[in-house]
Amino acid sequence: VTEDEIVTAIEALLASHPDTLRVTRGDDAALWQPSRSHRSAISTDMLVEGVDFTREMMSLEDAGWRAMAANLSDLAAMGARPVLATVALGFPQDAIQKEVLELYRGIAECAARCRCCIAGGDLSRAAVWTIAVAVVGEVRPSNEKLRSGGRPGDVLAVTGPLGAARAGLFGETAGLQALKRPEPRIAEGRFLATSRNVAAMMDLSDGLSTDVRRLAAASGCGAELNAIPVADCARVLAQGRGEDAERFALAGGDDFELLVAIRPRAFSHLAARYAKRFGRELKKVGVLRVEPEILYKGERVEPSGWDHFAASADR
Amino acid sequence: VTEDEIVTAIEALLASHPDTLRVTRGDDAALWQPSRSHRSAISTDMLVEGVDFTREMMSLEDAGWRAMAANLSDLAAMGARPVLATVALGFPQDAIQKEVLELYRGIAECAARCRCCIAGGDLSRAAVWTIAVAVVGEVRPSNEKLRSGGRPGDVLAVTGPLGAARAGLFGETAGLQALKRPEPRIAEGRFLATSRNVAAMMDLSDGLSTDVRRLAAASGCGAELNAIPVADCARVLAQGRGEDAERFALAGGDDFELLVAIRPRAFSHLAARYAKRFGRELKKVGVLRVEPEILYKGERVEPSGWDHFAASADR
Repeated sequence: VTEDEIVTAIEALLASHPDTLRVTRGDDAALWQPSRSHRSAISTDMLVEGVDFTREMMSLEDAGWRAMAANLSDLAAMGARPVLATVALGFPQDAIQKEVLELYRGIAECAARCRCCIAGGDLSRAAVWTIAVAVVGEVRPSNEKLRSGGRPGDVLAVTGPLGAARAGLFGETAGLQALKRPEPRIAEGRFLATSRNVAAMMDLSDGLSTDVRRLAAASGCGAELNAIPVADCARVLAQGRGEDAERFALAGGDDFELLVAIRPRAFSHLAARYAKRFGRELKKVGVLRVEPEILYKGERVEPSGWDHFAASADR
Repeated sequence: VTEDEIVTAIEALLASHPDTLRVTRGDDAALWQPSRSHRSAISTDMLVEGVDFTREMMSLEDAGWRAMAANLSDLAAMGARPVLATVALGFPQDAIQKEVLELYRGIAECAARCRCCIAGGDLSRAAVWTIAVAVVGEVRPSNEKLRSGGRPGDVLAVTGPLGAARAGLFGETAGLQALKRPEPRIAEGRFLATSRNVAAMMDLSDGLSTDVRRLAAASGCGAELNAIPVADCARVLAQGRGEDAERFALAGGDDFELLVAIRPRAFSHLAARYAKRFGRELKKVGVLRVEPEILYKGERVEPSGWDHFAASADR
């Protein structure tokens, strides 16, 4: 049983309780309409010690940053502006106040960087450090981007090079930094969301090989990938291990870049504007296709990124 | 170190990051203003197996209900109408899909009962069952109730009899039901919030002895309690144990009744309207006073309700 299969079963269960408001589920964040002119987005993400991180791998401050960044990245994927967050924190019996504050410092730093206010929280004992954040953002109704807006022929592009976090799992220094202090692509997401030619968007927290399948499926398409931008540190590490660098990056998780589907005739103009604005490349990685398979350079790709049901802290 | 002390330290840390929006923290839920005419409330609460419940004590379906009810109760305490919730769920390696769905069924039932939509969620492995819910509600700006609105002379009242959940911890049948399937006092909270004479409100999830201290402190007062309404099952159990029933209820946690401070001259009229509307009594338990102590029948009360830092599943 995969994570996506359980999610589908939960969706079926929830469908028996009709919603009292229009909410779109199944994207990085859910959208609702608090008043006529506003659209809000909400998302939640839980980090568990021993599953998503270990204390050998990173400090509690880093874990706090990561937990907040993972949530904010979901807002970025909707083109939303962060507004506020809640933090439910479980910590073990032997934790001391200094450690709780260390973790909170990482949470608060990442939140402040993205202009997100910590609105409230809950503290609880738990067997291991457990950080459940929920974030609320706002998006203009006209800028709303879902996973499902793509169609065959759309260009698939990513907001930056991939694989750094995976390299970090192997101890690579620059990669470790990417793993500990990922940057949610809030500004990039908001920029891309303003374009009518951006048809679909999501974040790559579970890795390109897993997430491209989700975006393609939501859009009723398959996808062909043929060029994956690889972070320098991931390239060095993969080559040192005798592995193909692009395949290494394809299978990585914890990349907080965004994956976007863009109408083909608009891509080069948008990419030029993106490069000018952010000083980084909006890299074409492939196209959406009618055929349902996910291909990389002509070969079928199996999902190899992050699935929590097969999870352990080193992968 | 108590929970309230750590919360104070966290508040100090967060104060170094100035908020980008007006948010009131330190109440059952935080309030913010998504647009001029709207006020939203958000709250989060985490339930952990072995701390907040055990599987011997209740089914996963009950645990799901409880997790949702605890969150919705925080909205009730603000006089807010529930809108939506997110659910971050951690479950152990040996959990099967049937169990995940059982837990979700309890979550969905409680949410549907309170007209709250499940907007999204996250699934993760964890050492034990861990349920972190965040809820969003809406409240009219004129109906906003904080803990801090009380003043000396205000009548303290509760929306129903106390102690049932504590009786449940001792195995009492009706008490077990209260522990497993608490009813958030949404309708009661919204009703009370419409009265200008209700000065302060909070829920009693940590027990009257702990929570009355919080409401009084937030209002810059002390309190004297002198008559505590006791749930029938708690009275029977306490008497069987040779304990004073009111003191038993005073020290109980997990009561999801609301505690309100009401301007004294308005109390009897409001109580009459409450009784007519809900068929239950709005019971006077005491008064707010200038002197900072918390007294019960003239004796000082030490906090004896729920503190997560001294927590174990039986108390």
